[in-house]
Amino acid sequence: MSSAVQLLKERIQAEGKNLGNGILKIDSILNHQLDIPLMMACGEEIAQRFADKNVTRILTAEVSGIAPAMAAGHAMRIPVVYARKIKPVTIFGPVFLETAPSHTKGMEVNLIVSAEFLPAGERVLIIDDFLASGKTLRSLVRIVRSAECELVGIACIVEKIFEEGRTMLSKYNVPIETLVKVISMDDGQIILEDG
Amino acid sequence: MSSAVQLLKERIQAEGKNLGNGILKIDSILNHQLDIPLMMACGEEIAQRFADKNVTRILTAEVSGIAPAMAAGHAMRIPVVYARKIKPVTIFGPVFLETAPSHTKGMEVNLIVSAEFLPAGERVLIIDDFLASGKTLRSLVRIVRSAECELVGIACIVEKIFEEGRTMLSKYNVPIETLVKVISMDDGQIILEDG
Repeated sequence: MSSAVQLLKERIQAEGKNLGNGILKIDSILNHQLDIPLMMACGEEIAQRFADKNVTRILTAEVSGIAPAMAAGHAMRIPVVYARKIKPVTIFGPVFLETAPSHTKGMEVNLIVSAEFLPAGERVLIIDDFLASGKTLRSLVRIVRSAECELVGIACIVEKIFEEGRTMLSKYNVPIETLVKVISMDDGQIILEDG
Repeated sequence: MSSAVQLLKERIQAEGKNLGNGILKIDSILNHQLDIPLMMACGEEIAQRFADKNVTRILTAEVSGIAPAMAAGHAMRIPVVYARKIKPVTIFGPVFLETAPSHTKGMEVNLIVSAEFLPAGERVLIIDDFLASGKTLRSLVRIVRSAECELVGIACIVEKIFEEGRTMLSKYNVPIETLVKVISMDDGQIILEDG
C-alpha cells in the first residue's frame, strides 16, 4: 500500500463525517480546504498507476476535481482541462456540452469544454474527487468521445462502492483507479478499504 | 524580472484574447486549461514575494482562484481554503458569507467559507486569478476580517490596472502583488507590463 493511500485513509477516518444519505464530508482535505501535501501525494500515486498509458491530457470537472487533477498533472507533466459548469463569457467557439446530476447540489449541471482544449487524438485520463454514481464521470467520458480523443482511464480520490458507479462505467473498458474505497456508511460509520 | 513573470507575459501576449469590454481571455493558461508548470512557477513567485510575512493560510474563491492558490500553497507549504459560490450539502455549521458581482458571469455571486477552516488569528494571504475591479477581493477581505484573522497581503496573477481595483483595495494597507499588469486593452490590443 502506498503512503498516499495510507495517509488519505487515516485523514478520512479522522476527519470525514458521515452526513447520512451516503454523503461523505471531507471538506478539510479537498472540497473546501486543500491539504496540499496530501493532494500532491495523491497526484503522484495516480501518475504511477497510469505511468505506462502515455497519457497526454487530464480532463476533470470544476470545482472539486481541480485540485486532484492539478496534482496529477504536475506529477505527469501534462496539461489539465476542467469542464466548466456555467459558461463564462470568455468561452466562445464550439464546445462539448453534457449534463449530469449533482449529488451535493441537488440539481442537473452542465459540463462544458471548449473544443480548442480537447483536440482529436489526445490520450485522456479523467480525474475527479469522488467516484459515486459515476454519472459525472460518464458525462466526461462522453465529452472525450465527442472530441474523438482516446479515453485511457479514470482516476478518483475516493470511491463509494455502494453507489456502484464502477459497474456502470465498466462498459468503457478502461482501468478505473481509486485511492480509497468507502465500503459502507451505514449506522453513521465510515468503513474504508485501500483502493 | 523573474522568469515566471517573463513566461506569463509571453504566454498572455501570444494566447490572450481581448474580447472587448475589458474582458481578457486567458483560458489556455488558467481559466479552463491549466498550464501546470507555469502555474507552479507563478506560485513560487508569489511565495517569494511574501516570504517574510509568516503567512499561515491562503484564501481564494472558486473556480479560477484554485489553481494559483494551490500552486502558492505548495510553494509556501500552507493550507488553502477556497470560498464556495454555491453551498454544497457538505457545508454545515457557521459560515462567513459575502456577495460580489461576477464580471464574467454577469450576476451577483455568494462567497461562502466555513468558520471551521478560518480560525481566528490565522495570517491570511488572499489569492485570485485577476485583480480587476477588486470587488471579489474586497469580499474575501471582509471574510478574513469577520473571521478575526490578520490579512497579510493580496496576490493575483494578472492585474487590469484600468479597472482601478488596486486603488479601492489600498485602504486595507497591505501589500498587493500582481505578476503581470494589463495597462491597456483599447483598440483590440493587449498592452502588458511586468508586475
